[in-house]
Amino acid sequence: MSEILERRLFGPGPSNPYPEATAALGLPLLGHLDPAFLEVMDETCDRLRQVWGTTNVRTLPLSATGSSGMEASFVNTVHPGDVVVVAVNGLFGERMCDVAARCGAEVVRVDHEWGTPVDVQRVLDAHPEPKIIAAVHAETSTGVRSDIADLGADKGDALLVADAVTSIGGIELRADDWGIDVGYAGTQKCLGVAPGLAPFTINERAFERRVERPQSWYLDLGLLGGYVGEAGAKGGGRTYHHTAPVAMIRSLHAGLGRILDEGLETVWARHAEAGQLLQEGLEEMGLILFAEKGHRLPELTTVNVPDGVDAAAVRTYLLERHGIEIGPGAGKYATTVWRIGLMGHNARPDAALLVLAALKDALDQVA
Amino acid sequence: MSEILERRLFGPGPSNPYPEATAALGLPLLGHLDPAFLEVMDETCDRLRQVWGTTNVRTLPLSATGSSGMEASFVNTVHPGDVVVVAVNGLFGERMCDVAARCGAEVVRVDHEWGTPVDVQRVLDAHPEPKIIAAVHAETSTGVRSDIADLGADKGDALLVADAVTSIGGIELRADDWGIDVGYAGTQKCLGVAPGLAPFTINERAFERRVERPQSWYLDLGLLGGYVGEAGAKGGGRTYHHTAPVAMIRSLHAGLGRILDEGLETVWARHAEAGQLLQEGLEEMGLILFAEKGHRLPELTTVNVPDGVDAAAVRTYLLERHGIEIGPGAGKYATTVWRIGLMGHNARPDAALLVLAALKDALDQVA
Repeated sequence: MSEILERRLFGPGPSNPYPEATAALGLPLLGHLDPAFLEVMDETCDRLRQVWGTTNVRTLPLSATGSSGMEASFVNTVHPGDVVVVAVNGLFGERMCDVAARCGAEVVRVDHEWGTPVDVQRVLDAHPEPKIIAAVHAETSTGVRSDIADLGADKGDALLVADAVTSIGGIELRADDWGIDVGYAGTQKCLGVAPGLAPFTINERAFERRVERPQSWYLDLGLLGGYVGEAGAKGGGRTYHHTAPVAMIRSLHAGLGRILDEGLETVWARHAEAGQLLQEGLEEMGLILFAEKGHRLPELTTVNVPDGVDAAAVRTYLLERHGIEIGPGAGKYATTVWRIGLMGHNARPDAALLVLAALKDALDQVA
Repeated sequence: MSEILERRLFGPGPSNPYPEATAALGLPLLGHLDPAFLEVMDETCDRLRQVWGTTNVRTLPLSATGSSGMEASFVNTVHPGDVVVVAVNGLFGERMCDVAARCGAEVVRVDHEWGTPVDVQRVLDAHPEPKIIAAVHAETSTGVRSDIADLGADKGDALLVADAVTSIGGIELRADDWGIDVGYAGTQKCLGVAPGLAPFTINERAFERRVERPQSWYLDLGLLGGYVGEAGAKGGGRTYHHTAPVAMIRSLHAGLGRILDEGLETVWARHAEAGQLLQEGLEEMGLILFAEKGHRLPELTTVNVPDGVDAAAVRTYLLERHGIEIGPGAGKYATTVWRIGLMGHNARPDAALLVLAALKDALDQVA
């Protein structure tokens, strides 16, 4: 490669990693069973517990991207014929239905208009005795936050599966307090690490109900416990399962270290401030925000493309002229919505100002 | 981290990456749909075709470690009740039985003594009409090479699934010439890249027989085709499936570039030379090699621990005194065999001399 490309990643993810996370990727590689690496792995699990807001022993980075976390959630908990109620208010809720059905679930789908939050009561009323209720905390496709705590409070005997891919490390998330039994996330958004791992957590209640021999060997939590040592649970013995993605885990370790050094609540406040600056600025430019007011994610803003503007041409201009990436809308909103993320290391006032100024320039030049 | 640990990774993998592969990990991150990244992805698939020895359109890096490649192989090709004949001559053959069974296969297991190669005729005779025959090319648990080409030549109507985790980039591998229908590998051994991806290839014959809606969404090859654009097949259109692990793919791209610049056959010869130096040196020290003569992998040498020597103490001494990692034996050979890898960037004469000298020192000091 003759030229090193630098991009400002203001789309729906990946975001630009924290410098500490990038530096850790380039460290000399350790073996996956090296005592020095096992210490990094244990610390990474501890740090993940903090950003999840959980004490779950089984909290670990799965060795694949965020979507594998969704698969691990269902493949380990759905027994054939189980009723799984899925709140669908965007692309990732839809995907949950597909993944759960492949695990043999009887899926009860509760649809919402995209751009609106999950209606907790409708989801709770959808079936009298679901085995699992599943919802997306922060819908990456629409920029909407839903109230997971209210689902958790009234879930009854059901397990609550929550997608925290775009919320973890960016907005308040309290897995234990909110009654999340199984949660999965990604590294490439507000955690400020490259894509490649799925931070995952499951509590005792869900683990006890798990499928004994799930259809996936790779994501079998019964086997993965030994892989991370299950620190508190079984005295920390290690069993070889698969070769840990050492470089990525060290990078996650470093990114989480940066977040916890800054302070998790301070990081949330930084995301809130940057998102507010961006959203106010967009409205001042006369643009209309897509997500319902009161439920907008600060870390991921969705905005309607003005009438007569070529959405893709604006994105291309931003990329080629300014090295700035923003995202198209998802699904049927591909050409009528933009998605602008200020996540992780990018959740800063200067990034908000930059993307506003660049978008203004693009609208002047392209439209 | 106060001190940056440097290890010589002479175990069964990961190996020390090529410097180009490490440098690529630290490049500024690109978005997973950035045109510049899509070009890297396409080139990576092209380069993978070369190291696989295939023209298969569906050749790609799966977004998880090598073991996920095993799962992808079976989950996409095993229909319920299909007879799958598995050649078992080590840990990874055993694992194939587990993974295939979870996909609903009727597994016919052909056991061999560990340390010996697959007996092709016994495998072919194990069932009159198997749907799939599966074998490991280079058994990481024993250091043994088996003859995949002979299986391919006489497989009949069956699909041949081959594990090339420890062979790819280290010894001769010709997927198309040998009749491999489905192959999977890892990045962290002879390809000289950190662990985290599974180079995968499937030909048209196998793809046409695939499971329409496999139990794994994450590894569904029908969906993954759109993710990599299926260059030749469908005009290169892209469909969002999951977020590509961008940094790891760029690292694989760079590692493969290094190998192809050097020349694949030259790289094989380098592995052969380093392995021969090591194996001759071990025998000169009076040690007994574990794998059957004539079937020893140059990239991964197994050697019996001498009577009365504490195998783990030697490994600890090597790590702490010299920063050198070698591996224990696998399974029941955990304390009676060592595994010494000279893979990828480590497949060099100086590395062979170093590990011989260090092992001699360890035997003097510890035993």
